[in-house]
Amino acid sequence: MRSRQTAMTDYLTPLTRPALEQLSIPAPWAYGIRDRVRFYELDALNHVNNTAYLRWFETLRIPYVRDYGLSDYGPDDPQLVLMSNSARYLAPMFLGDDYVVTGRTAGFRNSAFRMEYAVFRGDEMTCAGEAVVVVLSPDGSEKCPIPDAVRARFLERDGAVDETA
Amino acid sequence: MRSRQTAMTDYLTPLTRPALEQLSIPAPWAYGIRDRVRFYELDALNHVNNTAYLRWFETLRIPYVRDYGLSDYGPDDPQLVLMSNSARYLAPMFLGDDYVVTGRTAGFRNSAFRMEYAVFRGDEMTCAGEAVVVVLSPDGSEKCPIPDAVRARFLERDGAVDETA
Amino acid sequence: MRSRQTAMTDYLTPLTRPALEQLSIPAPWAYGIRDRVRFYELDALNHVNNTAYLRWFETLRIPYVRDYGLSDYGPDDPQLVLMSNSARYLAPMFLGDDYVVTGRTAGFRNSAFRMEYAVFRGDEMTCAGEAVVVVLSPDGSEKCPIPDAVRARFLERDGAVDETA
Amino acid sequence: MRSRQTAMTDYLTPLTRPALEQLSIPAPWAYGIRDRVRFYELDALNHVNNTAYLRWFETLRIPYVRDYGLSDYGPDDPQLVLMSNSARYLAPMFLGDDYVVTGRTAGFRNSAFRMEYAVFRGDEMTCAGEAVVVVLSPDGSEKCPIPDAVRARFLERDGAVDETA
Repeated sequence: MRSRQTAMTDYLTPLTRPALEQLSIPAPWAYGIRDRVRFYELDALNHVNNTAYLRWFETLRIPYVRDYGLSDYGPDDPQLVLMSNSARYLAPMFLGDDYVVTGRTAGFRNSAFRMEYAVFRGDEMTCAGEAVVVVLSPDGSEKCPIPDAVRARFLERDGAVDETA
Repeated sequence: MRSRQTAMTDYLTPLTRPALEQLSIPAPWAYGIRDRVRFYELDALNHVNNTAYLRWFETLRIPYVRDYGLSDYGPDDPQLVLMSNSARYLAPMFLGDDYVVTGRTAGFRNSAFRMEYAVFRGDEMTCAGEAVVVVLSPDGSEKCPIPDAVRARFLERDGAVDETA
Repeated sequence: MRSRQTAMTDYLTPLTRPALEQLSIPAPWAYGIRDRVRFYELDALNHVNNTAYLRWFETLRIPYVRDYGLSDYGPDDPQLVLMSNSARYLAPMFLGDDYVVTGRTAGFRNSAFRMEYAVFRGDEMTCAGEAVVVVLSPDGSEKCPIPDAVRARFLERDGAVDETA
Repeated sequence: MRSRQTAMTDYLTPLTRPALEQLSIPAPWAYGIRDRVRFYELDALNHVNNTAYLRWFETLRIPYVRDYGLSDYGPDDPQLVLMSNSARYLAPMFLGDDYVVTGRTAGFRNSAFRMEYAVFRGDEMTCAGEAVVVVLSPDGSEKCPIPDAVRARFLERDGAVDETA
């Protein structure tokens, strides 16, 4: 079944700019995952619980880091440590809502980068977020510079700002 | 974007027998949802936590009940009460595993039905489960018979056994 | 069993300043809940997942709002809407860690208040957070001023700043 | 603060028979943890979600296995694999409900044991469950017999049945 052709805007599969364009997600968002609200993400108020959005950011961040070449999560890969996390809630979401969670690196320094996130339901942004990630050596003992190839992708794909100066 | 054509074996979209056939899911499984393991479903042992499978069964049960015509979850619909739930764990699952969770009604009585569940990773069954659901009146005050049209679907689509006799 | 005497620094029971003092939580933290890290709060990295802290803030916020007199969560009570949420992660936490999650209102306006949160493991702060909550009328149609008695408690108990001017 | 005296029926602390007696939990339940329903354990129906009970069983099982001497979860300890899990739901539970989750080994064979669980709200049993756990060697390559000292505790504390014959 692995030979099945993936639709350009398929669910769960990381999407890049052309697919996001088709899904009405504006630039500069360059990486996203399409998904759907599940029952267990609702709370007793019958809408998506505030913490579920942070899980969506994490669900995006994990393949993002791999696809941008920062870590394959192996023993010789850098350790990535989440320093901070935030969300602004713009509209409630409900069971079955179809959405795209998107993320991009907005800025970076020598060994840290700041990601921005957004959740889109159609062309409506329902949640915006931000996270700062620090890059450590594989054993976690010291900061590790972001490789040049990764910095180049942050700049080129995401329109990130180099804040190392 | 709502006009996008859904692939026959798309993620998250309830699948019926022809699509399940394509995904190597054997009969009599007649209803399934394709999904992928997420980071937050892992536990500290780095595999899918035992409770995640039960959430998958629930994620399946909710549209199943609607698609088989038992409830639209409105104020005039029957109340459905989960009486029991079980899972047998056949193989560990890992981050990114592609799977199909399937469910069918194996048997029913006047106002209760017994569902069976299975999780398939390719053609390997990794988890099997079972749940008994009781059907109550909209206000929850008394048992409510399963409508004939729903019983017919249990029999025809799922190969359920009528245990009312 | 309801007659059991509650220890001053008991788990799960909202604690006020004298108990927090005993637990080495510095002023101005005035409201807290003592708890312990559970297995399901760990992620595959074997430490507390970043979203768990936000759940702890929520677990604190719910009785806080009731105990400060803002809402009993009844149909005639104001609706409280979480506008934003953030966390800074200061140290990893592990299975079985004993902690106190604390919260206070740092500032308020006519119909919104800004809470700060902290998690203490002993006298070490492991996480700091912030949330903004808007107060709406019971039907959610319009903003609702924070009652004077609640403002007085924000000022007196929490050392909040009145930012309405 | 570590010198604080623990109340006999304290929350979160594993309780044995004398404390359970005080909390109206009948024999043969010999090991329990007292806790309270949290907001995040509710689902959109405003009662405790069916999967939360299975998490409670797990929260109990982890210290149980350690306290009965089967594993300290170190690299040289046996691997414990959950084979099956089930729950019967006897009464809905709500935010703030005070409960005790209890567990005991009901039967064991050479390298597997069957635990039973119950949740009590006061003297009302709200949920009953069962799980089968298999004991493997530290590297997981083969079954590992349950040590005699552990079997003795299963028999003596829990009234387990030796099903090895």
